[in-house]
Amino acid sequence: MPESSVLVAGASGFAGALAARLVHRHPHFSLAAATSRSDAGRPLDELYPHHRVPVVLEELDLDGPHGDVDAAIVAYPHGASAPVVKALRERGAKVVDLSADFRLRDLTTYQRYYVEHPHPELIGDAVYGLPELYRDAIRETALVAGPGCYPTATILALAPLARAGVIADVVVDAKSGVSGAGRSATEKTHFVTVDENVTPYGVGTHRHAPEVDQELAVLGADVVTAFTPHLLPLDQGELVSCYVTVDGDPGDVVALYEDFYAGEPFVEVAARPPGVRDVRETNMCRIHVVADERTGKVFAFGAIDNLWKGTSSQAIQSLNLMFGRDETEGLL
Amino acid sequence: MPESSVLVAGASGFAGALAARLVHRHPHFSLAAATSRSDAGRPLDELYPHHRVPVVLEELDLDGPHGDVDAAIVAYPHGASAPVVKALRERGAKVVDLSADFRLRDLTTYQRYYVEHPHPELIGDAVYGLPELYRDAIRETALVAGPGCYPTATILALAPLARAGVIADVVVDAKSGVSGAGRSATEKTHFVTVDENVTPYGVGTHRHAPEVDQELAVLGADVVTAFTPHLLPLDQGELVSCYVTVDGDPGDVVALYEDFYAGEPFVEVAARPPGVRDVRETNMCRIHVVADERTGKVFAFGAIDNLWKGTSSQAIQSLNLMFGRDETEGLL
Amino acid sequence: MPESSVLVAGASGFAGALAARLVHRHPHFSLAAATSRSDAGRPLDELYPHHRVPVVLEELDLDGPHGDVDAAIVAYPHGASAPVVKALRERGAKVVDLSADFRLRDLTTYQRYYVEHPHPELIGDAVYGLPELYRDAIRETALVAGPGCYPTATILALAPLARAGVIADVVVDAKSGVSGAGRSATEKTHFVTVDENVTPYGVGTHRHAPEVDQELAVLGADVVTAFTPHLLPLDQGELVSCYVTVDGDPGDVVALYEDFYAGEPFVEVAARPPGVRDVRETNMCRIHVVADERTGKVFAFGAIDNLWKGTSSQAIQSLNLMFGRDETEGLL
Amino acid sequence: MPESSVLVAGASGFAGALAARLVHRHPHFSLAAATSRSDAGRPLDELYPHHRVPVVLEELDLDGPHGDVDAAIVAYPHGASAPVVKALRERGAKVVDLSADFRLRDLTTYQRYYVEHPHPELIGDAVYGLPELYRDAIRETALVAGPGCYPTATILALAPLARAGVIADVVVDAKSGVSGAGRSATEKTHFVTVDENVTPYGVGTHRHAPEVDQELAVLGADVVTAFTPHLLPLDQGELVSCYVTVDGDPGDVVALYEDFYAGEPFVEVAARPPGVRDVRETNMCRIHVVADERTGKVFAFGAIDNLWKGTSSQAIQSLNLMFGRDETEGLL
Repeated sequence: MPESSVLVAGASGFAGALAARLVHRHPHFSLAAATSRSDAGRPLDELYPHHRVPVVLEELDLDGPHGDVDAAIVAYPHGASAPVVKALRERGAKVVDLSADFRLRDLTTYQRYYVEHPHPELIGDAVYGLPELYRDAIRETALVAGPGCYPTATILALAPLARAGVIADVVVDAKSGVSGAGRSATEKTHFVTVDENVTPYGVGTHRHAPEVDQELAVLGADVVTAFTPHLLPLDQGELVSCYVTVDGDPGDVVALYEDFYAGEPFVEVAARPPGVRDVRETNMCRIHVVADERTGKVFAFGAIDNLWKGTSSQAIQSLNLMFGRDETEGLL
Repeated sequence: MPESSVLVAGASGFAGALAARLVHRHPHFSLAAATSRSDAGRPLDELYPHHRVPVVLEELDLDGPHGDVDAAIVAYPHGASAPVVKALRERGAKVVDLSADFRLRDLTTYQRYYVEHPHPELIGDAVYGLPELYRDAIRETALVAGPGCYPTATILALAPLARAGVIADVVVDAKSGVSGAGRSATEKTHFVTVDENVTPYGVGTHRHAPEVDQELAVLGADVVTAFTPHLLPLDQGELVSCYVTVDGDPGDVVALYEDFYAGEPFVEVAARPPGVRDVRETNMCRIHVVADERTGKVFAFGAIDNLWKGTSSQAIQSLNLMFGRDETEGLL
Repeated sequence: MPESSVLVAGASGFAGALAARLVHRHPHFSLAAATSRSDAGRPLDELYPHHRVPVVLEELDLDGPHGDVDAAIVAYPHGASAPVVKALRERGAKVVDLSADFRLRDLTTYQRYYVEHPHPELIGDAVYGLPELYRDAIRETALVAGPGCYPTATILALAPLARAGVIADVVVDAKSGVSGAGRSATEKTHFVTVDENVTPYGVGTHRHAPEVDQELAVLGADVVTAFTPHLLPLDQGELVSCYVTVDGDPGDVVALYEDFYAGEPFVEVAARPPGVRDVRETNMCRIHVVADERTGKVFAFGAIDNLWKGTSSQAIQSLNLMFGRDETEGLL
Repeated sequence: MPESSVLVAGASGFAGALAARLVHRHPHFSLAAATSRSDAGRPLDELYPHHRVPVVLEELDLDGPHGDVDAAIVAYPHGASAPVVKALRERGAKVVDLSADFRLRDLTTYQRYYVEHPHPELIGDAVYGLPELYRDAIRETALVAGPGCYPTATILALAPLARAGVIADVVVDAKSGVSGAGRSATEKTHFVTVDENVTPYGVGTHRHAPEVDQELAVLGADVVTAFTPHLLPLDQGELVSCYVTVDGDPGDVVALYEDFYAGEPFVEVAARPPGVRDVRETNMCRIHVVADERTGKVFAFGAIDNLWKGTSSQAIQSLNLMFGRDETEGLL
């Protein structure tokens, strides 16, 4: 198979920069270009020296060289992404979009939580980019909607129970490092605000709850997830703690999870509760599940690196599938 | 009122050392002595320079000078504490015990989660040291059982709902800094283990769950709390995120909480979700409550400093009451 | 002595907010008002809940009530401070200024490192606010220039050697937490920039070097200090590591330091190297000095809390002196 | 070229575990075995899940299978390493030793700072494993002494000046993350000790100073380095700040450094001061040099990841050379 050229659009943010690094080091992808609206002209190594990607950020030029790539990873803000995705698709490039623009199948829900959708006609073309659930569809599609980082961990932590049809109610307490809040400097991301602190945010209003509900419904669980994220004093990493009230007997939940994820290269059902350090800078999701004797509930914990499995390395996992390659290439 | 002399037994640990500092700076208490089994002979300032308490740690000698104090704060491990408490009570000292030895009214529960109880006959004498719930009883008693740090935050975050009789089910996701794990050096408290990490622990087995249930029952809620603590990369601070399935209409929950805590000097019902930084090195518990529209649940968050309101400054709050003083003395 | 009313101008920044807290809790000062240009109208507790100062930030109004105070602590940016100081002095208030506007006695040096000086005529009125060196002058003056945080630690760490006349050359490697960079959110103060990092900054250009040289000269050392600050992943705390090439025999340096600082309430000559945790949230400077056998140099280390002894609590120490009070009031 | 089998002896520590990972992922090395004295029988993934090396730690058995490897990386404590190295050499394996046992050419110096040397007869066989200085010798040798992490950064930061013969005096202020202190749990590595702290240690006695002096002497500088390390609240990363009093005119120091390191794949002379984040999890050393106008000194800063370039990835760099491979294999 020939090497495929991959554009990363929006490479000055945390997710885009990591995507550029992963493409650059991939054995069968080449980095066609890395673009940035805010930092065009600057070497990517000036912003992220440890990524060691020797390219200069460019202005996006889809009518020029950037329109002639095999694929693109688009790391634009919600609403700004869809037009770029549309243009890339028109030029024949396969696309993994990291924004929320194609995650939600229901336009009304999207528009309630985000913005007016610029290209709703494309929503139907997109496959939800969680390979553990949509592997075959990802292989066939040319447009993947990269899942949100919280939904990635949450859905993987709950999928076996959802498929088993035993979720009556679920509370998800999610915890994330600061890189999930992006590169912009605000009072919320100031070191002194975050250090020695932990704070809930987006209480009752977080955009990721409907995305979780959508996918749990596909798996067979009709629930409204109580989802609350918290900001932690760490850079990368995300832990979701899921507390499930079960309806019916789920049986041996450890066996249920091990069966569900048998053969999965990037999901591990672990014997002890995971820490986000266990999966730092990997494409792994590490899950621990236990039936709690006191309460009768099932507790499921999932840990990922929000920038890797939660965003950019998961995009590579999808790209591998879209190009018919081994899913693990460039990710071990 | 004359000044009262206060002994701190077990002052080389985090909680005992802070208790010694708070006694030392208190306008009407004097630090009779600070004792330590492991570090007798060392200046306390050598271990904790920032506390600035100019005393040398001593061996406990209850038949000598330490038996002749007005009061004592005992910061011994579970099981080791009760004999010291008994000896102090026999010598007439008022006692605030920071161990779990007198928190649980049910001996069987205590012995399932902790150890054989050395002095069960004293359990009935103890008052649970949460002034917001037991203020009058604390004023009358000579033995206070200092609540666990997690139960302090959890019970305060849930008390108004428990009293209102609307808790059908509750999930508590608790997050703590490392000082809660104590001063002993283990793989779990190694900097490299904790840094850039967050991990659940004691899953399904944590000792604080029955303590929470006991107090919620007193308030009128008959529930089995799903309680899971997590270790965070910070030194001091504790956040509990409580997700309550309500039974019946709690009405305006913010008003409910504001009424319940009206006039409380150390509980604040806040308009935004609290961070543990908001209460760092204070005796405050900061609570935020919201009725979640999507799920119909009530979310209540409580933040404390685990060493202060969670342990040592709360002990001073109780001591103030036991000596008929203003509850806030030495705590502002 | 009657209570003195103290205005804090610029109380929404880290230093001003802490000054407001220290005034508020002082046994003999009362907080007349706390003002802010950017946050007037907001409760101070909304910005800094843990300080627990129940005031609303006001617009500065020197022709109204704020002109009629006994004293003021001014926490304005360099250049913006001098006009406020001038107006306060004209209205008879004693002033401790936390900016650099009155630290440098040489106008040319000030203007090279900072800005055009709005009121050079006031420079001669100011006393450098390091009580350990200028105690008597501070008692007599109505205008104190609060030292920079780095100079505070550096000058205290080097003063005994400077006075002994043995400093031939000195290298100062300084390390500070992020609060020293102020409250404004920039790429430099973003959590992800600072976390797991340490970086030199202001290399060869830092404004604090001439301030250090000025004071070392007063003490008798004619040196050009090689001064380089570094940013560390912590919120508060500052350590200076000073490497001195000596000229002549300093004798027993530990004895030299102990003699120099005998009786000082806020300087401790410690037997082991200090960490900034040792002085966290205190007005202490902790110093360790050693004659290095291998090199013949003297190493002196000084640790302070940059917001406390480095800025705001040191201002209280000066205010105590200016009002004829015990220097330690409100600081223990 | 055939693949080479590499044993990692002492793989349960931070350095050995990382070495095992780097060997495991190397395109032309295979991990023969990973051994541990303390953790034999445990999967390496249980200790270090994020490394993802699917082997079980074994007892070292040099008379069995471990004696028949092409090479070994030995990560044993000082003194314990030499006998293992000797046995491996007798069996024909090339060795990179990560202990100090073969770093110092002068036996007396070694024995003053470390322990009685078990095999001084091997010292002469070893090449100091800093490829930037000893590339050709490393290609020819079968025994490499992996440099200390501090000396790696310090020597690289000073080498151009040392070779130019202009170093009259040098002060090195070094800063390291906690992983440099190893995996053992002590009061010094307890999270609460390190967090929000920075402390000098080994003042005047640190073992790395004579190692630095030895190599600077080889380069032509006859100096006694004033070397002081500090412990920082971060896991990985090391910064050395070097303050050089020059003797003679070094000319354009930036050009001097750029020439010296021209073509080096793992040293970068950077235009701005480096942070350790810039080199996190890379084999890079990032250096910034500036002639300071105020003092006439030259300031040179070097940043590395103490576990990577400071230890384990640098060992791979040497192994690549010892096997005649491209120096960068497995390190990009």
